[in-house]
Amino acid sequence: MKKPLILVSNDDGITASGIRALIEVVRDIGDVVVVAPDSPQSGMSHAISLNSDLRSDQITIDDGAQIEYACSGTPVDCVKLALSAILKRKPDLIVSGINHGSNSSINVIYSGTMSVAVEASVAGIPSIGFSLLDYSDVADFTASKIVVKKIVEKVLKEGLQKGICLNVNIPKCPYSQINGYKICRQANARWIEDFDVRKDSKGKKYYSLSGNFQNFDNGKDTDEWALSNKYVSIVPVKYDITSYDSIPELKLWNLW
Amino acid sequence: MKKPLILVSNDDGITASGIRALIEVVRDIGDVVVVAPDSPQSGMSHAISLNSDLRSDQITIDDGAQIEYACSGTPVDCVKLALSAILKRKPDLIVSGINHGSNSSINVIYSGTMSVAVEASVAGIPSIGFSLLDYSDVADFTASKIVVKKIVEKVLKEGLQKGICLNVNIPKCPYSQINGYKICRQANARWIEDFDVRKDSKGKKYYSLSGNFQNFDNGKDTDEWALSNKYVSIVPVKYDITSYDSIPELKLWNLW
Repeated sequence: MKKPLILVSNDDGITASGIRALIEVVRDIGDVVVVAPDSPQSGMSHAISLNSDLRSDQITIDDGAQIEYACSGTPVDCVKLALSAILKRKPDLIVSGINHGSNSSINVIYSGTMSVAVEASVAGIPSIGFSLLDYSDVADFTASKIVVKKIVEKVLKEGLQKGICLNVNIPKCPYSQINGYKICRQANARWIEDFDVRKDSKGKKYYSLSGNFQNFDNGKDTDEWALSNKYVSIVPVKYDITSYDSIPELKLWNLW
Repeated sequence: MKKPLILVSNDDGITASGIRALIEVVRDIGDVVVVAPDSPQSGMSHAISLNSDLRSDQITIDDGAQIEYACSGTPVDCVKLALSAILKRKPDLIVSGINHGSNSSINVIYSGTMSVAVEASVAGIPSIGFSLLDYSDVADFTASKIVVKKIVEKVLKEGLQKGICLNVNIPKCPYSQINGYKICRQANARWIEDFDVRKDSKGKKYYSLSGNFQNFDNGKDTDEWALSNKYVSIVPVKYDITSYDSIPELKLWNLW
């Protein structure tokens, strides 16, 4: 039987321990090509390099059978470059992560990891973004690897509707303490910013972004609820941000 | 009567002629503060600067009454910085653009201009992104200014539902040739990439992103249809990318 072709990327960079864990799992399942950023790209969202050239050099990081390219661009650049210029055929699956830190609720909008999966879904390829709720560089991906294996095998078997990807977030605990898997919606939450303001040697202000996460959503069908209750959250994602409910009201506006 | 406080930003940079046209219109309507990127940031999507400091210096570009800050960050950084560190009170409206080039259909995902509006809506502030279907640096914004005035005045009068922003795209033609305004949904379209591959002096490949826009959507209720038929397209946008329709099917999966 022909093995599935699986493309792997992330936003933490090609040497991050999260992507190395992801590669370890999927190379037992399919033929794996990695096209991932050569440096950390957290918070890059769906950015693309319109004004700079891209480089993508083949490298060897471990002795696995996967083929790897370190790319100078953003996570979405990696997907575009892989699909148009690197891969010989369309992949059967694109996986991203495992992200160091949550991409639940509103975090999905800022996440380069999830933008890989969303870009894949726009291109009509089944895809999954995986994130562990642990920001540490040395996070323990043991439980995550079990989750990845189960979900990747399921998606390869069942398929996903065209245009859909999955946003999978994994609680920070041993697998034995996970209560199960929940299919969820994205919680209504946001970050309240709180910039650190400092002054440079010339007395000019500069700012560092920081903030506090606020969940406004009490729904038990949300990813935030699932994660707080030690479930793996799975949100099906489709990139259409039209607010269909608002259309009838706006049609009453008399602009002409 | 107290004037509304209007925050202005964009992704083409604070000196682009599109944002200057937008400022000209809105400074007749409200008190205007501009916090916009100090350099072009097209294609930056919803990226935020997690790993670098931000600078935001007050500058004077023309003799208008608006207060302006040129910010070293991304379009979304500009919004976050304005709301948390620059403005004394919450603005009544955030406007973005006028973008040089379309942000209809899938372009909204890559657009820094629309990410300004989306970030504002996540923060609960009414917002509008304006784009003209003309990529030229010296595009003619005469008709766009009429459109901006009408829609800004309407939104200030009627308000927008919490969490909603508008994606307004304007055909490239004189106002007399515009057929009206259409409330639309985002068309199902995508870019098919086509990288230019070149070799450097050491024989190493490098790539430049280019591509062809493909609209797969024949719906007459889409922004693409409206724009092709010389209507101003207005898509109400809400940032929830959950694919609600997919939830029941996925709940049948047996992962546990």
